[in-house]
Amino acid sequence: MQARFDDVKAMVAKSLEGAMAHLPKGELTDAMRYATLGGKRVRAFLVMESARLNGAEDSAALPVAAAVEALHAYSLVHDDLPAMDDDDLRRGMPTCHVQWSEATAILAGDALQTLAFQLLTDEAIGDAEVRLALIAAFSKAVGAQGMVRGQALDIQAETAAEPLDEKAVIRIQEAKTGALFEFSAVAGAIMAKADPEPLRDYARNLGLAFQIADDILDVTGDEAATGKRVGKDDAAGKATFVSLLGLDAARAKAERLVDKAEAALEPYGDAAGNLRELARFVIERDT
Amino acid sequence: MQARFDDVKAMVAKSLEGAMAHLPKGELTDAMRYATLGGKRVRAFLVMESARLNGAEDSAALPVAAAVEALHAYSLVHDDLPAMDDDDLRRGMPTCHVQWSEATAILAGDALQTLAFQLLTDEAIGDAEVRLALIAAFSKAVGAQGMVRGQALDIQAETAAEPLDEKAVIRIQEAKTGALFEFSAVAGAIMAKADPEPLRDYARNLGLAFQIADDILDVTGDEAATGKRVGKDDAAGKATFVSLLGLDAARAKAERLVDKAEAALEPYGDAAGNLRELARFVIERDT
Repeated sequence: MQARFDDVKAMVAKSLEGAMAHLPKGELTDAMRYATLGGKRVRAFLVMESARLNGAEDSAALPVAAAVEALHAYSLVHDDLPAMDDDDLRRGMPTCHVQWSEATAILAGDALQTLAFQLLTDEAIGDAEVRLALIAAFSKAVGAQGMVRGQALDIQAETAAEPLDEKAVIRIQEAKTGALFEFSAVAGAIMAKADPEPLRDYARNLGLAFQIADDILDVTGDEAATGKRVGKDDAAGKATFVSLLGLDAARAKAERLVDKAEAALEPYGDAAGNLRELARFVIERDT
Repeated sequence: MQARFDDVKAMVAKSLEGAMAHLPKGELTDAMRYATLGGKRVRAFLVMESARLNGAEDSAALPVAAAVEALHAYSLVHDDLPAMDDDDLRRGMPTCHVQWSEATAILAGDALQTLAFQLLTDEAIGDAEVRLALIAAFSKAVGAQGMVRGQALDIQAETAAEPLDEKAVIRIQEAKTGALFEFSAVAGAIMAKADPEPLRDYARNLGLAFQIADDILDVTGDEAATGKRVGKDDAAGKATFVSLLGLDAARAKAERLVDKAEAALEPYGDAAGNLRELARFVIERDT
């Protein structure tokens, strides 16, 4: 898996760099570029493996992988703003509004969302029907029906009178991180006009396991490894899988979800080895 | 023209309402709806007339008109934020972050941009090639190559050591408001796979005239009519067409631009009557 991950990282970095190379020079473009540096590229990896499993070429999947990473970068820039989660450290570097300014961070996020949609119009991806199907699914995953709704619910939860229960925390996770995970995982099936259900099932379980692992890292991780502040949820009295279940039960739940994610890959047989490894990785990572 | 304008306003309001009706209930959707209320709907009118002149049905153009208004609404919500222009009044109502919160305003703007792209995937617009061509042109007009870049330059100008000259002010306007005006005006030609150049020429002159009229209203207008604060540019020492040229020369320049805009419509003959009237309207309006 690691070799493929390294390849994907390099390809996506090049693709994003290429997409931004023809933008006018200036602070806005610099901030966009800054915001897309680093990152685990888990979503891009999902896109590339989903495409490979469905017989699509890397060159066709790459603009889609770059689009999900541009979108993810925008969401981090806006989530980190003072009016939102107010974070000063991300991927081991100052957050975008600290490095530049709040205005530039808002605009860089805005332009990264636009760039994500622009990348999905790339002819290399496939015929017009395929690209439109991707754009429609993407818009559903990242707007008021998906990611942005999850972030809104998450922020509202911080000022709620009572901490949320597990069901509510799962509902927020499904929107906030789950929807884009799911899009990334089914993108290859959409490209190949194949059945997306096994990959959707995989992504749902993987996304939830990923969030639980994030919650665990917020308690047990350190800033040098994660590249972001830790202990913030606990300090804010925020309901997380760890606060609701305790560390051991949260770990056990994540394990069960990874088992389910692996089981969902059965139709793909041995070809899905990388995605099986990814599922293990998301709960064993320290970053 | 007025009857058509009223029709367009009603159709666009209904279309936007329809697009948001199936979103989950809550503050995010409420804020999105709030942000899309009112407005002159000049951009939607451009889309609808551009489509009509190119033989497209209202029903096909309507999702495009709704998309440009959703996009415009997002840009106003973000521009009004404290970290940007810090405005508290818009369309005669408290701005989105005053009515709700900064976090909700950021997210509502984000989700409105997504909604705009989602609207452009609507099958009613035309075949997949047409919709993709619109999405590609739209993404170019509203991101780091267009509107967002204009806003970034505009904000940077506020802290520049010296006020801008006319050329620089025009360059900012072309990006900040011109690009979306241009997209709106050529949308119908893209839908009909017809020559977009006459409408592009029209839109360039109209957009600049519109901006000059805005600068004049910031000096001569009143808040009750415009529904937004006036005198802000002058108080901020910002270079505008009025500060650079004086009121009379600015008015004369806007007149000349409107003449040019009208001349550009020649290929369409009498059918372009509404767009001719619109050009007159943008410099005679008091709102």
